[in-house]
Amino acid sequence: MNAGNRTTEETEIRRVIEDRVAALHARDVDRLLRHYAPDFLSFDVVTPLQRSGLEDVRTRAEEWFGGFDGPIGCEIRDLSIAAGDGVAFCHSLNRVHGKTRDGATINMWVRATVGLRKQGGAWLITHDHTSVPFDVKSGQARIDLEP
Amino acid sequence: MNAGNRTTEETEIRRVIEDRVAALHARDVDRLLRHYAPDFLSFDVVTPLQRSGLEDVRTRAEEWFGGFDGPIGCEIRDLSIAAGDGVAFCHSLNRVHGKTRDGATINMWVRATVGLRKQGGAWLITHDHTSVPFDVKSGQARIDLEP
Repeated sequence: MNAGNRTTEETEIRRVIEDRVAALHARDVDRLLRHYAPDFLSFDVVTPLQRSGLEDVRTRAEEWFGGFDGPIGCEIRDLSIAAGDGVAFCHSLNRVHGKTRDGATINMWVRATVGLRKQGGAWLITHDHTSVPFDVKSGQARIDLEP
Repeated sequence: MNAGNRTTEETEIRRVIEDRVAALHARDVDRLLRHYAPDFLSFDVVTPLQRSGLEDVRTRAEEWFGGFDGPIGCEIRDLSIAAGDGVAFCHSLNRVHGKTRDGATINMWVRATVGLRKQGGAWLITHDHTSVPFDVKSGQARIDLEP
């Protein structure tokens, strides 16, 4: 793949990541799901160990969106994209923030890695991995870290 | 990329993942480091939020290997590899097990995602993301989950 094609692919992938942020902000499950492949596998920040398939993404997104009062903010930092011929991955640090229905404020940085494949002319997410690290001594997930 | 080339690339990447397991078993830091690119970025299972560069990988590996008494076991399950032209990613569930110097037994399943680029004819790891999910109610990292 030449440098020009690579730039084009990276631009397309950046648009996928940005549209996912817009879908979160609007809490729009259908808009979110457009970016996922049917055989999608997720390693999410909270239990369980893994989730797979579009129906599972939908269920999780509906639950999660439903817990928020108002938009869900997502600020993406240090996005790095590696795009090849039909396969790409990217990683970033994402600050997720908003207010929950029970009045709590969510404001946490998560590590995000996304794997994509080009299928039918469009980049689709086949895998994502979102997490926070834990503290060895306490066993607590560190949702208070900042980059 | 045709199917034959793709199979060849996947075989090479599988060898990288398997040799990394062998390096863990032998607690051989130099053997481990051969598989990482200089600009490597790590999202590790424990704090901090991120680590970057080979020296940081070396320091972390030496600390981690030094805490074990005997070999570190790593069983890889459900390894899925997506290989393109010069860019690849894979994900798996890994059971890490062994005995620590202070007599504790480690036995935990982690989610592992690895991003690679082909550089100078060899697949090198430019990114890895290893984690466990946390429990929303307790805030505890769930190191006791099994697939």
